[in-house]
Amino acid sequence: MVTYTNLQLVEQCDKFPYAQTGPDEYATKVSGYYKFHVEGCASVLGFMIPATVQGFQWPDFWKVDHQRKTVLLCGKTLNERDQRVARTLAAERQRRHFKLLGGWRNELYPVYGPDRAILVNIERAASPLFGIVAYGIHLTGYVVTESGLKIWVSRRASNKQTYPGMLDNTAGGGMASGDKPFESIVREAAEEASFPRDYVRKNVKCAGTVSYFDIRDERAAAGTEVGLLQPECIYVYDLEVPRDFVPRPHDLEAEDFWLWDIPELQAALRRGEFKTNCALVLLDFFIRHGIITPEEEEDYVEIVARLHRRLEFPCA
Amino acid sequence: MVTYTNLQLVEQCDKFPYAQTGPDEYATKVSGYYKFHVEGCASVLGFMIPATVQGFQWPDFWKVDHQRKTVLLCGKTLNERDQRVARTLAAERQRRHFKLLGGWRNELYPVYGPDRAILVNIERAASPLFGIVAYGIHLTGYVVTESGLKIWVSRRASNKQTYPGMLDNTAGGGMASGDKPFESIVREAAEEASFPRDYVRKNVKCAGTVSYFDIRDERAAAGTEVGLLQPECIYVYDLEVPRDFVPRPHDLEAEDFWLWDIPELQAALRRGEFKTNCALVLLDFFIRHGIITPEEEEDYVEIVARLHRRLEFPCA
Repeated sequence: MVTYTNLQLVEQCDKFPYAQTGPDEYATKVSGYYKFHVEGCASVLGFMIPATVQGFQWPDFWKVDHQRKTVLLCGKTLNERDQRVARTLAAERQRRHFKLLGGWRNELYPVYGPDRAILVNIERAASPLFGIVAYGIHLTGYVVTESGLKIWVSRRASNKQTYPGMLDNTAGGGMASGDKPFESIVREAAEEASFPRDYVRKNVKCAGTVSYFDIRDERAAAGTEVGLLQPECIYVYDLEVPRDFVPRPHDLEAEDFWLWDIPELQAALRRGEFKTNCALVLLDFFIRHGIITPEEEEDYVEIVARLHRRLEFPCA
Repeated sequence: MVTYTNLQLVEQCDKFPYAQTGPDEYATKVSGYYKFHVEGCASVLGFMIPATVQGFQWPDFWKVDHQRKTVLLCGKTLNERDQRVARTLAAERQRRHFKLLGGWRNELYPVYGPDRAILVNIERAASPLFGIVAYGIHLTGYVVTESGLKIWVSRRASNKQTYPGMLDNTAGGGMASGDKPFESIVREAAEEASFPRDYVRKNVKCAGTVSYFDIRDERAAAGTEVGLLQPECIYVYDLEVPRDFVPRPHDLEAEDFWLWDIPELQAALRRGEFKTNCALVLLDFFIRHGIITPEEEEDYVEIVARLHRRLEFPCA
């Protein structure tokens, strides 16, 4: 049976090398990628793998430079850039070249510039093709009992495309363009776990972010392209749940909810039963609440730093 | 009057460029430094500025390579290396070349290898000469009141060498070789603020780390050498303080204690009244407790990442 250490759980999501601790590995990796740019902004906005760049049929409002390994989206205004990306991706979706686009979501993800203005919006399913930063929100609903803290975990529906049947946080999801973290968590908590919106609004607390840089493996890709880059930033929320409240599945994203104590959760983490980024949110919760301590966790300092990676691209 | 944003407060301590967001600036900076090594370990353990390397009178158990910009301490065993560093630093202290060594503490700081074994111990006052990672522990003592959270802050004695008269956390300090975070925070809370050890032991919670990479400016240097490198990792502790307990100065490190509400604290932060790294511990507390929110703080994502920097050197 597999047994994961906490650091190994972090490494399952935070796979991209670090420039400051592995400069040679980092330089090799980065030099193999194309840099995604939009007109008028000097910042790199995402990393693209060569197979992706070669796979696209690029309309002429894209400038692809194979020498400098850059992919530039031309367009003077946000609206123009949005339309051009939409047109490009709609054509690719029809052409069925990228398996990833089979999971089309009809949901736009924002790409921010260094001044935090949105530079372009990209269909969610396509975001790993461009390697842009994805934003999410995750909720840890906990109950204070005489025998210690317990946490509501959910099991993902067995028909979900990614990580079917695995354990998940109390609620959570991606954040589409225009979404704000607070309103998103209120919505997700209601939609996925039937939490009363007023209760969440009044009691939920944002407790920071968890950020990491993933290279999508077979499990994340779920039958689509592997090796795509996925930097992600998750706003983490804590919610003390009244003892008599039981979350119930509402939109069928979750199959069921379980109230587990800390040893049960830690055993499930070690067995690798949690969806990979949900494990990170739980580890961050354990650290913030003094459940994982530096005395007991030899990788404490590295884990805390890697749960809060500073990403290479401008962020929200 | 100066007004600092929260991000500017972070930037006061986290001054070293980031390889992933400013590769050219980072490469220029790093190429100007000497790398500190010890025999038998491939890892870089600290960055040293050329003026420091030229200022030392190196005994022959040191190998200084000006071409490759490396400073290597030879010695097969920990004991041998410790004695050699002690001898070198004792001589430098007598020679009075480095002003920094005038603040001799008679306290050893550990230098860890990648497997977390201690490779060598170095006098605390000398640690910025080698640019090694320093470890500290800071306590935020808070009181839950009807009108919200309040926090006990201390004012540093006006005769302290560094940051005299500035505001500080409830308690805190450096962690010498052999110290463990938990026992250190119990000790500091008792010594600096007269907290009963049993109460702290039972109620204090480690809530993560705050880490940053500083380049020591005039204020940190306090009349000694400027431009030295100081990466630091602080274990942060939260302690709920009973309403009727009033911390009192014990060892005269602190002059006085004040129970401040959040707006008062935020105003003092904005005015730059806190010792620079104490401001970071407070910001981290505010984030973990939902006091600073992504909706109100536009630099939220960057601040969270930079409060938890992954350092270039092996850590505890």
